[in-house]
Amino acid sequence: MNHGAGGELMQEFVSRHVLSHLEGTASEVPLEALDDSAVVDGIVFTTDGHTVKPLIFPGGDIGSLSVAGTVNDLSVMGAEPVALSSAVIMEEGLDMETVDRVMAGLAEASRACGVPVVTGDTKVIESGGIDGMVIVTSGIGRRSPHMDSNLERARRSREVKSAWLTDDNVAPGDALIVSGRLGDHGVALLSFREGYGFDTDVKSDVAPLNRMIASALQAGGIVTIKDPTRGGLANCLNEWSSKSAVGIELDGPAIPVSETVNNACELLGIDPLSIGNEGKAVIACVPEAAEDVLAALRSHPEGEDAALIGYATAEYDRVVIRTEMGGRRVLEPPVGDPVPRIC
Amino acid sequence: MNHGAGGELMQEFVSRHVLSHLEGTASEVPLEALDDSAVVDGIVFTTDGHTVKPLIFPGGDIGSLSVAGTVNDLSVMGAEPVALSSAVIMEEGLDMETVDRVMAGLAEASRACGVPVVTGDTKVIESGGIDGMVIVTSGIGRRSPHMDSNLERARRSREVKSAWLTDDNVAPGDALIVSGRLGDHGVALLSFREGYGFDTDVKSDVAPLNRMIASALQAGGIVTIKDPTRGGLANCLNEWSSKSAVGIELDGPAIPVSETVNNACELLGIDPLSIGNEGKAVIACVPEAAEDVLAALRSHPEGEDAALIGYATAEYDRVVIRTEMGGRRVLEPPVGDPVPRIC
Repeated sequence: MNHGAGGELMQEFVSRHVLSHLEGTASEVPLEALDDSAVVDGIVFTTDGHTVKPLIFPGGDIGSLSVAGTVNDLSVMGAEPVALSSAVIMEEGLDMETVDRVMAGLAEASRACGVPVVTGDTKVIESGGIDGMVIVTSGIGRRSPHMDSNLERARRSREVKSAWLTDDNVAPGDALIVSGRLGDHGVALLSFREGYGFDTDVKSDVAPLNRMIASALQAGGIVTIKDPTRGGLANCLNEWSSKSAVGIELDGPAIPVSETVNNACELLGIDPLSIGNEGKAVIACVPEAAEDVLAALRSHPEGEDAALIGYATAEYDRVVIRTEMGGRRVLEPPVGDPVPRIC
Repeated sequence: MNHGAGGELMQEFVSRHVLSHLEGTASEVPLEALDDSAVVDGIVFTTDGHTVKPLIFPGGDIGSLSVAGTVNDLSVMGAEPVALSSAVIMEEGLDMETVDRVMAGLAEASRACGVPVVTGDTKVIESGGIDGMVIVTSGIGRRSPHMDSNLERARRSREVKSAWLTDDNVAPGDALIVSGRLGDHGVALLSFREGYGFDTDVKSDVAPLNRMIASALQAGGIVTIKDPTRGGLANCLNEWSSKSAVGIELDGPAIPVSETVNNACELLGIDPLSIGNEGKAVIACVPEAAEDVLAALRSHPEGEDAALIGYATAEYDRVVIRTEMGGRRVLEPPVGDPVPRIC
């Protein structure tokens, strides 16, 4: 199970058993970059399999999750999503009420963010381990019309390596922003699952972020964005640190996590920064742009709790958190997944 | 299980529980056309989930199958495939040797047809019903450079409704061609599965057809193409008949089916024309172009057994086969799937 958890074990598995077979390609952002989307022939292209359990949870369902996840993977590359595909694999015997609720959730999310589902596939398999349904969503997008002016603003401060919002684009001094409170999605699912013995009223944050990200790009000065899904903020920042060859220093108390999520995580012995989110963006921008980007995020309901959480640094090559007491601890990439089957 | 079999029950399920939730879109070939691919903003876009059992079979594996299926879905719309995505969902405990063989099969197929895999996703789930692995492949393509001259040749004979090779583009008088022998894929899988009690040396026909189809389009005069996967030729021609509102008259003895496949199907009591294929194209073209299209197909190894099998007609609205004895029978769309889990 840990090979699919989004952490280090998975990176290793993908390198050894997937990438090793495939050849490098001439695309602008190729497969081997292991970024959120590829860019090929001017088209931004992404895919994501969703195996969430349960299929319907507080704040969303596997349908809305699959739309949000794919729209966000396109948006965080600097693309405007054009269309989605949806492949649904269902277990024999799944009740039609669940099918209808999930498809309604998918349709509603697609309508809300203005990105149509244009093609799809349905397969039915014998009942067994998929817990009813798996949805694989792919998406295509075009370069956002705000990207050129956005990067132009960043270039007023420093050189910018990539023409897209890729993981290798962070430089020392960049400001790091999260668009809201972390950990809600994972804790909402855990507290809803049987046998975990605790109850919260935390709802999943599942949301397509294309419009909020478009506003942030209009503000300008952004060099990269990532949605902290599997592996959470810890995985996201460690990928940036490693692919951009920079250190990251976080101001612990500034990282927005709700008290309920904090308490639940303490109870379970897991780190809220390692849990997947489904409606959050982590943004790196040149420091001069940070206030404008924060204001742009906060003008959207999904971004009202946006916060500046730290800076990239040349002093070391790891992700470090300054704690409330003034201490420092290294934020490691999660090895496995503290909360399986949440996306 | 029958809701996923590609036949009439599935069409009904998709209409009632999937399409009913989604809105019509402005794409050139929209979701509600239920065609092989969508066309949106100049991009041809398709997705397909593969749940084949066993994962490795005579002539291919789920990896090569997923590449061929997606490349073919793009090609049969009149597109040149640009890139593929691959989402792999694996069961916990699946052995790495199988993973490696499947990924090597996928990579080899991608190399052979010249269409790169540019983005992907991997998920691991608890062991259960997926029999090891499901692969969902999506693909993007651009309009083939041969499409305009191809349709131009068709327009010399008659009006052509759609600018793409869609299911509603057939007209009375059109010649119908298959690119080779039918039923090999389904019979190869059945004979390889345990418990079926018969042995053949039939190999799956799994093959990407983009180059063969490009040659056929260069010959010109083609109004539509379809790959007869789930539900086989019977499903393909009934979709054309219903969406184009034409009848189809087939010359039974002209339909290429190998003796081994015929014998195996007789033994099992199934119709070889209702079994899925993974490396065949069914083509409708204006009758004047038939000889040139046949020659173009036969110039490729995948098309060496190409044959003219009948014509579209205005005389009735069903698919009818003239048998060897001079009788006629209606070829109904399959209700369920005579051979489950083959694609």
